[in-house]
Amino acid sequence: MFEQLGLIGCGLMGGSFALALKKAGLVKRVVGYSKSPSTTDRARQLGVIDVEAPSALLAVAGADIVMVAVPVSATEATLKSIRHLVTPQMLIMDVGSTKSDVVQAARRALRDQVGSFVPAHPITGREVSGVEHADAELYSGRQIILTPTERTLTLQLQRAEEVWTALGCRVTSMSPESHDEAFAAVSHLPHLLAFSLVNSITSQPQADTFLSLAGPGFRDFTRIAASDPKMWRDVLLANRDELLAQSKLFQQALHSFETAIRNDNAQALEDMLTLSSETRAHWRMGAQRKKSP
Amino acid sequence: MFEQLGLIGCGLMGGSFALALKKAGLVKRVVGYSKSPSTTDRARQLGVIDVEAPSALLAVAGADIVMVAVPVSATEATLKSIRHLVTPQMLIMDVGSTKSDVVQAARRALRDQVGSFVPAHPITGREVSGVEHADAELYSGRQIILTPTERTLTLQLQRAEEVWTALGCRVTSMSPESHDEAFAAVSHLPHLLAFSLVNSITSQPQADTFLSLAGPGFRDFTRIAASDPKMWRDVLLANRDELLAQSKLFQQALHSFETAIRNDNAQALEDMLTLSSETRAHWRMGAQRKKSP
Repeated sequence: MFEQLGLIGCGLMGGSFALALKKAGLVKRVVGYSKSPSTTDRARQLGVIDVEAPSALLAVAGADIVMVAVPVSATEATLKSIRHLVTPQMLIMDVGSTKSDVVQAARRALRDQVGSFVPAHPITGREVSGVEHADAELYSGRQIILTPTERTLTLQLQRAEEVWTALGCRVTSMSPESHDEAFAAVSHLPHLLAFSLVNSITSQPQADTFLSLAGPGFRDFTRIAASDPKMWRDVLLANRDELLAQSKLFQQALHSFETAIRNDNAQALEDMLTLSSETRAHWRMGAQRKKSP
Repeated sequence: MFEQLGLIGCGLMGGSFALALKKAGLVKRVVGYSKSPSTTDRARQLGVIDVEAPSALLAVAGADIVMVAVPVSATEATLKSIRHLVTPQMLIMDVGSTKSDVVQAARRALRDQVGSFVPAHPITGREVSGVEHADAELYSGRQIILTPTERTLTLQLQRAEEVWTALGCRVTSMSPESHDEAFAAVSHLPHLLAFSLVNSITSQPQADTFLSLAGPGFRDFTRIAASDPKMWRDVLLANRDELLAQSKLFQQALHSFETAIRNDNAQALEDMLTLSSETRAHWRMGAQRKKSP
């Protein structure tokens, strides 16, 4: 049980965390701050936070748990601005989609207090953003990846695991580097491909006709292309090397398909399609992979 | 109201059409044939068809409406096998995802009876296949594209429009060539990209770890990668030229993103992401495109 959550960034992710903590009875009071005063105001009106703070530092004053839910490129400046109030008794977390850059930013910003910081990535999200879409159930049943370093305090890592578990999440730990490699493949690249497909269609003179004919396959494939541009600008830049490496592997796979299609090689094409179809049909979110019999 | 539906291909699409016609009270009797006798048998057990026919020709005997729901590469042989029983009073349709090749196959197979054939593409589908998944509601509320030619009989075109409208569909007509161009962009290419992404991940040593971490974005982006390999082998080959042209445009869009990421050009990246995000956020399935204000 926490006395006070200091919430920095009252958007979809931060707001949902505050609502979830409240619903689970894990916090008495939420003090919130957003860069935009109208967002902070709206968060209070919606009951996502109890008290508006005029700065990130004042949102942290008196808090025993702090959630930094800002675009990853703002992590370093945000942590710097609160450093003077950080104590070893305080649990600080983020929800960023990249972790190597966040860990480096935390090291630079928090210095000897970096042990209080437990980097976290909840595997959830929405294609909508903003505190209006904050949802106490956003994290329920989801996977949370924690990427502690050798300097992370054991006490705070345990508390982080307890909080997320209490919110109905399954907690996994790994290194920041392994995290970024995996999420380049299963999240950042799919986003990049969905963004690229939409822009490729938009660039054509028949875009309006094409889009009026698109069906459920297009709808689901491109859902993530509606994601927040500023957040994804930061993610794609922060995980550049892993992302470009995954994109290269993807283009090799695409070229294999194109070669089979161009050569009218039905058997090779069917073999590749069968591999993909069976892999995806056996995949279950959050489960270890099942091999086909 | 039809007396008898001759259903050739008792899979997801054909079976769902039979169930929908029955539910709407539009047909008295369904006679079905599938290449695999066990499929035909299963379709009868499930009540999708009333009578099993031992051949495609016998499924058509006595029918006033015929649905050919086979992989597009089997269209020509199927139509040839029923040609002797086709009359100008008969409405014949397909549900293939490509239309230029189907129209050419119908011309070759049906010759002077080609006027009875109304090529149709319902914009629906499932990542699962087989008669077990047949669903009377599969077509409800969906768009149907008809691609009649100058030889299509007006009477049969009108009846086709009436049938689909009675099933709750919105009917659009266009040329086979325009159809194939549009669906290369909004359906065939997204499928190809989803297949490629899954195979790209599978080819890596850490595939199992990566897949165990994937979340809702990956789930929706790759849903169509579980689609039927044989059906998609045919579609990708049948619409090869348009598909490869769309893939080229896509790769240009992807390279623009990669260049901005590689050059750390945050503004260019954000501009491209904003275009994509706004386009997708304003898109509604089956609606004319709304411009952002």
